[in-house]
Amino acid sequence: MTIIKQNSPVLFFYNDSKKWLMNISKKESLHTHIGVLKHADAIGKEYGSRLMTNKDKYVYLLEPTMYDYIMKIQHGTQIVYPKDLGYIAARAGIQDGQKILEIGTGSGSMTSFVASIVKPRGHVYTFDVDEKFMKIAEKNIRRAGVSKYVTQTNLDLKISKEIPVTEMDVALIDLGDPWVVLPKVRQMLKGSGCIFAICPTMNQLEKLTIALVENEFTDIESTEHIIRTIAAREGKTRHSFQGIGHTTYLCFARKAFFGRKAKTTKAKTTKAKTTKAKTTKAKTTKAKTTKAKTTKKSVKN
Amino acid sequence: MTIIKQNSPVLFFYNDSKKWLMNISKKESLHTHIGVLKHADAIGKEYGSRLMTNKDKYVYLLEPTMYDYIMKIQHGTQIVYPKDLGYIAARAGIQDGQKILEIGTGSGSMTSFVASIVKPRGHVYTFDVDEKFMKIAEKNIRRAGVSKYVTQTNLDLKISKEIPVTEMDVALIDLGDPWVVLPKVRQMLKGSGCIFAICPTMNQLEKLTIALVENEFTDIESTEHIIRTIAAREGKTRHSFQGIGHTTYLCFARKAFFGRKAKTTKAKTTKAKTTKAKTTKAKTTKAKTTKAKTTKKSVKN
Amino acid sequence: MTIIKQNSPVLFFYNDSKKWLMNISKKESLHTHIGVLKHADAIGKEYGSRLMTNKDKYVYLLEPTMYDYIMKIQHGTQIVYPKDLGYIAARAGIQDGQKILEIGTGSGSMTSFVASIVKPRGHVYTFDVDEKFMKIAEKNIRRAGVSKYVTQTNLDLKISKEIPVTEMDVALIDLGDPWVVLPKVRQMLKGSGCIFAICPTMNQLEKLTIALVENEFTDIESTEHIIRTIAAREGKTRHSFQGIGHTTYLCFARKAFFGRKAKTTKAKTTKAKTTKAKTTKAKTTKAKTTKAKTTKKSVKN
Amino acid sequence: MTIIKQNSPVLFFYNDSKKWLMNISKKESLHTHIGVLKHADAIGKEYGSRLMTNKDKYVYLLEPTMYDYIMKIQHGTQIVYPKDLGYIAARAGIQDGQKILEIGTGSGSMTSFVASIVKPRGHVYTFDVDEKFMKIAEKNIRRAGVSKYVTQTNLDLKISKEIPVTEMDVALIDLGDPWVVLPKVRQMLKGSGCIFAICPTMNQLEKLTIALVENEFTDIESTEHIIRTIAAREGKTRHSFQGIGHTTYLCFARKAFFGRKAKTTKAKTTKAKTTKAKTTKAKTTKAKTTKAKTTKKSVKN
Repeated sequence: MTIIKQNSPVLFFYNDSKKWLMNISKKESLHTHIGVLKHADAIGKEYGSRLMTNKDKYVYLLEPTMYDYIMKIQHGTQIVYPKDLGYIAARAGIQDGQKILEIGTGSGSMTSFVASIVKPRGHVYTFDVDEKFMKIAEKNIRRAGVSKYVTQTNLDLKISKEIPVTEMDVALIDLGDPWVVLPKVRQMLKGSGCIFAICPTMNQLEKLTIALVENEFTDIESTEHIIRTIAAREGKTRHSFQGIGHTTYLCFARKAFFGRKAKTTKAKTTKAKTTKAKTTKAKTTKAKTTKAKTTKKSVKN
Repeated sequence: MTIIKQNSPVLFFYNDSKKWLMNISKKESLHTHIGVLKHADAIGKEYGSRLMTNKDKYVYLLEPTMYDYIMKIQHGTQIVYPKDLGYIAARAGIQDGQKILEIGTGSGSMTSFVASIVKPRGHVYTFDVDEKFMKIAEKNIRRAGVSKYVTQTNLDLKISKEIPVTEMDVALIDLGDPWVVLPKVRQMLKGSGCIFAICPTMNQLEKLTIALVENEFTDIESTEHIIRTIAAREGKTRHSFQGIGHTTYLCFARKAFFGRKAKTTKAKTTKAKTTKAKTTKAKTTKAKTTKAKTTKKSVKN
Repeated sequence: MTIIKQNSPVLFFYNDSKKWLMNISKKESLHTHIGVLKHADAIGKEYGSRLMTNKDKYVYLLEPTMYDYIMKIQHGTQIVYPKDLGYIAARAGIQDGQKILEIGTGSGSMTSFVASIVKPRGHVYTFDVDEKFMKIAEKNIRRAGVSKYVTQTNLDLKISKEIPVTEMDVALIDLGDPWVVLPKVRQMLKGSGCIFAICPTMNQLEKLTIALVENEFTDIESTEHIIRTIAAREGKTRHSFQGIGHTTYLCFARKAFFGRKAKTTKAKTTKAKTTKAKTTKAKTTKAKTTKAKTTKKSVKN
Repeated sequence: MTIIKQNSPVLFFYNDSKKWLMNISKKESLHTHIGVLKHADAIGKEYGSRLMTNKDKYVYLLEPTMYDYIMKIQHGTQIVYPKDLGYIAARAGIQDGQKILEIGTGSGSMTSFVASIVKPRGHVYTFDVDEKFMKIAEKNIRRAGVSKYVTQTNLDLKISKEIPVTEMDVALIDLGDPWVVLPKVRQMLKGSGCIFAICPTMNQLEKLTIALVENEFTDIESTEHIIRTIAAREGKTRHSFQGIGHTTYLCFARKAFFGRKAKTTKAKTTKAKTTKAKTTKAKTTKAKTTKAKTTKKSVKN
């Protein structure tokens, strides 16, 4: 039985569209249009209990899940939604212990979700170029409690010659032009490793698919995921009137070796100077730098 | 770089509908209508490499993911599909370290998937009544490599008075009549804990939703998940001609306390005699048995 | 080339969510938040031309189609949407010359749509019990230009013993409890005639389907129709972000003869006193009664 | 009451996937794997009646609707499906009396459907270049009973300089490259007239949308239509397991006048030598031929 204490995270839940995620702070109150709640009143209660506002509305004190953290992030930035995240995890078989490469940290929602699955033995290496965004992501990742399992690096993998990580189990790409980093991603992925790209447009799917073949990936699959809510009520069950629209398409593939005449150059990998969940600029890289001559292939269709 | 050895699991992948999952066994061959492959030829190769059959078809040697194990289970029994499993994980925020209750082990596909996420510190307690099915599940779970994180018990939670586990983070129910076990599930779940039920029909959603309210659950949500495949090809990208039909609806909720006049009887929990991933019959149970007087409530609508 | 004149109907079209349907009236102006337009400026122009508002926005002067009339009705009442209407027409094979029975006139949107297809040789007989609604419907039907092909009658077919029409090609039912009128509808339909019921809930589909079998209908089909809008734009084509939610399910069937022990009662049909597109109370009925040998069946519930 | 006679069209209906459409021919029998039926036994029966095969299976004698004719055509060629046809009719407001232009007759399914709606006062002018297909279409159109309302012409509107028809209410285009004929279609459409193009790929939608703007069309809308079948059964209602996949996307628009510096040349229209529902080669065209200088516009985005 988990009791709510000072500093405990709580999801104040009224209904699916009225909910507030915060840490308990003895002296604070939650002011909403359904009334006021004193944080202090939550202390000592078991998660799942409810409080009544001064307007006689019941609010449940739920223990936040990773879902709640992700949906909280939603307010303000574009996120990858749980329906899509779930499929990514299930299709790529993400699990404890894996090493995940993420290109495009964004707001850190996918980062947090994936970290919560691969922990404690796995790790997420995430790269972005926008310092401002990286700070937001850092905060979101910390809030979700998974900083320890995430390394954020400010590095532009589109142009950098470094190969900061290798033998990744899964690569997640959330860039407008994911095909640009494919040769590099390939070097960072283990053989048979999975790739998932967030592609909001059909054009991206198309270009990426062509590039995936050129870069010797197999089991290529493009999907979209539609979630429909059902209003299940006695004697009048039906789908919800409000629809859920498009979020993104997803493109999956696995790294293979086509055995093309590939004059494969041994790419010496180097580690970008990264910091655990700190957003630092990967300035230099020690090492016998990376010739990163990304396995050039002469490929047609 | 992971090299395929004797006994290594390999997904021989030709395309999405022609793929074979097996362990490498030096002296065996894979006979398919696209030709024959000798297992021995795979040994020493890196995952992701390809072999040519005696009919000149290329087959990729992929490292099986949890997805592959689940889809393999599919052949022969009804499974919960990755699109649904993924949402379950994402919506309930399943992650490393959690304790999961599963009622209705079925073929073990959901069991395996969930175990792969909560491991190494979490655990799945799964219950079923059909011995034959339990053996199949046991084999599938072992094959998926997660036996260590699963405890299978032959116990009918619909009628048993035992409370074999408590303080579960998440309860997964795959029964025809999930509402029957709700009072008991409630006792096994921690406060604010999540429940997910696999409901193939609308009628189940309806009945379950009513029962969830009666049993003091909140954040109740019924959904269905549609996956559409897109054939992304240069200049002619479109959705796939073959559609994906109905698999199941999902019903989610979280345990709350409505503070009803509940003359709550302290249910003393007892442990069913279970065995790690062995299907044993939970015959007796020692203990000061469980009066399991499930928090009777007087409820309206 | 059709020129807009005084009294011509015009759809002032700015975009899909900003459009106004009205008849040209020399001295009037259209006041919108995208500016003001004088009706007089439209006169003499060809349909399809555009005018500029005093805020420099272009508005197209489109010739209203039946679609525009139906979507116009939408504002204020619940309508059957074009995506559903279209399927009804296509599945039931509605065409010129047919006689259509409609139970539940509602706002007259379905009435108008169907009338526009069966005219000039067909006719729609529509029944409702709500006088206020009938007046609204009458106005909408007139506006859509199909009054001549519609007979509105105030008659409760759930309780009335009259059989006001017979040998209908198609019956459209928009009632909360469509199963109640099935035996009667059967008497009004020709052999092999089609039925379509608007069923917003799954429970209605279920009850109706059972009743359709009991009432000797075949080719029973329940469907739902999802329309998704695609934002087709150069280099970034994708589905629209806003989704379309649930409108209604549809239930289709065709009248058959199961040859059950049918102790056929001669049901004497009478004609309700109806008026062409006038909402009059069907008091008495003259008439050389219709022998409407309505194959009475012994049916339960 | 309509009685089946020699030569009457009958849909022998066993279930949705086992049904046969044919004209009654006294001496013939229907041989199926559910048994044999003599046509003669159907004569004298009312539509909707049933016959028993020599294998004790009941088959219903339904009066074919336009839907049945279209679904019959399906076997062998690609058709536009009722779900899509219905939306076309509803969105474009197709109704009695309209003149319809169709480019790409195909198997004649859309032709027949549309003709059944615009008859008796309207007409469908349909153009194709494939003589073999035109013959098939001719047969299908005749079978559907609407030859009188259809004029088939063998003319390649992509290259021809003729403007065989004008002031069309609606234009339906079923070509791989619909944008090619847009300038010409524009000349044949009345102001504010509607266009619908059958576009199986996203790329077609994208190209066509760009071309529609360039050719001064407004109210442009791309959609896809998903039909889901529901198995409504007592106590276990759910969506059908088999899914319906992609058929086509649809692109709609209406002809407008953007008032661009258009040095509009009066296009003198000429009538292609056509024949009512006969597939004749439009050889010559008398007339002061058509300079068809398709209102060249200088357009940006």
